[in-house]
Amino acid sequence: MAKRRKKTEPAASVSQPLKRAPRQLDEKDVKTLKLIGSTAERVRTSIDRRTLPELRFPTRSLGNVRYQTEVGYFELGKGRKARALSVNTVKSFAQTLRLMSISKEMVENNDFATKREAYYVSKNWGDCKFNEQPESDTVMDDIEALASLEGLSREQLRFYPEEHGGSVAGNLVVLDRDSETGAPLEIDCTGFGSGSYSIPHSVEHLGFRTRAKFILAIETGGMFQRLNNHKFWKSADCILVETAGVPTRATRRFIRRLADDRKIPVYAFVDCDPYGIANIYRTLKVGSGNAAHINRFFCVPQASFLGVTPQDIIDFKLQDATHPLQQVDVKRARDALKNDPFFLAHKPWRKAIEMLLKMGVRAEQQALAKWGLNFVIEDYLPRKLRDPRAFLP
Amino acid sequence: MAKRRKKTEPAASVSQPLKRAPRQLDEKDVKTLKLIGSTAERVRTSIDRRTLPELRFPTRSLGNVRYQTEVGYFELGKGRKARALSVNTVKSFAQTLRLMSISKEMVENNDFATKREAYYVSKNWGDCKFNEQPESDTVMDDIEALASLEGLSREQLRFYPEEHGGSVAGNLVVLDRDSETGAPLEIDCTGFGSGSYSIPHSVEHLGFRTRAKFILAIETGGMFQRLNNHKFWKSADCILVETAGVPTRATRRFIRRLADDRKIPVYAFVDCDPYGIANIYRTLKVGSGNAAHINRFFCVPQASFLGVTPQDIIDFKLQDATHPLQQVDVKRARDALKNDPFFLAHKPWRKAIEMLLKMGVRAEQQALAKWGLNFVIEDYLPRKLRDPRAFLP
Repeated sequence: MAKRRKKTEPAASVSQPLKRAPRQLDEKDVKTLKLIGSTAERVRTSIDRRTLPELRFPTRSLGNVRYQTEVGYFELGKGRKARALSVNTVKSFAQTLRLMSISKEMVENNDFATKREAYYVSKNWGDCKFNEQPESDTVMDDIEALASLEGLSREQLRFYPEEHGGSVAGNLVVLDRDSETGAPLEIDCTGFGSGSYSIPHSVEHLGFRTRAKFILAIETGGMFQRLNNHKFWKSADCILVETAGVPTRATRRFIRRLADDRKIPVYAFVDCDPYGIANIYRTLKVGSGNAAHINRFFCVPQASFLGVTPQDIIDFKLQDATHPLQQVDVKRARDALKNDPFFLAHKPWRKAIEMLLKMGVRAEQQALAKWGLNFVIEDYLPRKLRDPRAFLP
Repeated sequence: MAKRRKKTEPAASVSQPLKRAPRQLDEKDVKTLKLIGSTAERVRTSIDRRTLPELRFPTRSLGNVRYQTEVGYFELGKGRKARALSVNTVKSFAQTLRLMSISKEMVENNDFATKREAYYVSKNWGDCKFNEQPESDTVMDDIEALASLEGLSREQLRFYPEEHGGSVAGNLVVLDRDSETGAPLEIDCTGFGSGSYSIPHSVEHLGFRTRAKFILAIETGGMFQRLNNHKFWKSADCILVETAGVPTRATRRFIRRLADDRKIPVYAFVDCDPYGIANIYRTLKVGSGNAAHINRFFCVPQASFLGVTPQDIIDFKLQDATHPLQQVDVKRARDALKNDPFFLAHKPWRKAIEMLLKMGVRAEQQALAKWGLNFVIEDYLPRKLRDPRAFLP
């Protein structure tokens, strides 16, 4: 084996990996290990009794979703599918157990794997290996859905997303731990000058210290940069988070945990177009339909929509800085009005989207630059922030 | 005007924008102002003499590019195009001067605009406004090409890119300044725990303090995360930079300035496929053909290619963790062999690409996980780093 041969060669000085912090199992780690252990136990017991083992997972589809405004996000319904061991399912059955076994090891060793890495690890499983990543993703989604019933997310299973993406600046100290020594780390998000704090791929272990009044979730890097470089977070006493389009899992989870922990509201500042409204904002606030098993962790029900609203286009005379709605925009807006439980549940949103369709235009947040580069800081945001209760729900 | 009306309303507490740091013109700012001033002066003198003014810009096309390995990047040739004032060109002529005038203001006020914002600012220019952003981008590219002849980049003109994207972790202290007080800021990139430092949109003003031996530029977020969480930067004494695919301008410039300033090499660690080689690495090292006027600032001639190389697929027995080359991969590789001055100039690269084509497969950097999640840290990277002279040029 290539690996064995290499292992016997003398190690170079750079080859000594650091010892990692002593494993500190927290409450959720214990729960994760228990879930994996009990699942494996049931399979084992079946086999010992000479009965065919079965794994039961929540059905992941729009048909198995419900939306209640009080709950605030798309929830998983009661539908379940069974994966019984048979000649046809033996491979995916074994793959499921092996992925869970990797998860167990990673929790115990304080390590993690991206979905992509998990796929590659399987290449050493012989006949049991995954041929394409969509196969391992599907199995992982099932395990994730199973874990979500216990209040555990994929991150707790130690499968991390490939992308992080979000940046943070402002009145916030992030509490992390040194991965080598376990010593506490304080990361002061006021101290990065023109730069910012890049959210890690998993944020489950982070703590927060802040007296900020709200979190401003900003769609574009350009706007984030402007507000950060002009220290809007200081004058408005807030925390700036750049979502860079539709926020990634890590960014959504970061905002959610921070907002929950410090009990502060989240205001979304995105483009005024069906994508900004029905994709970025809707996903941030209530999650998405085809991933209902994760919405409970990743949605931000305490979010409201600061702007840019269709009414803002009129109030701030942005008409000549707009663009015509494209066909895809119109379709997205009509879909939202017709099929999306979130917009169906909120009349102010239906009115706003109808207004946008009637005007037939869209406006980007940077369109405010029409009135001067810093109009957004000196006028737009302060005016809007005088009355957050007027924000769209 | 909407703006005036709003200005007279009482300001809310959050509406007081902070005073920014007293403007500190550095050498390049002075040069920028001088360039803008002298260009405007020439136009003015022509008009005073009753002759039609003319602006001359470098031609931006592959035909006006040259590549010398000693120089290390695609250079702008001597081709120039003139924009004379006429009935047909009066609008773009005026737009060019107005954009340069905004640039002057921004340098003086220590402010900046994204390309998108600059486009929107024009909406207040009456007949002179841009109708679509590609128009303002073209004018801006011309101004940028003009400035590049003086050693000035678009960032010095204070037009910043919309995207930043790169993250940094490791043995590096970034020196920045507080935008409000001008006080020096030290940002210790060992102190971000599982997170990292997010590179700002413009890095011209940053300073660096480090004793690291090299910069490792990493293609994927997943690999960056692994090396950061396991503190590879400590065991290997280096600085990790996540490029997140093809590095953005800011990321390339950051790596370049850091490598120049501290005189340390840059090692690229990307997927073994024509995209990783001919797009990510080639762009990082020598720049691109259609943007030759900026390569002198954004390329990183001191970069070399650590891996994953086609030979690594054999040496590390990754064959069963590869994917077949797609048609687009094959086309990209053949194009590189046939037309790309960089690959034409380096025989080891031609041999490597031919080998890849012959094997007919590609391998991702995460494919190393086949031998265990941390094989890359414990074996692959240490082995490779024993002999950086063996890296592809």
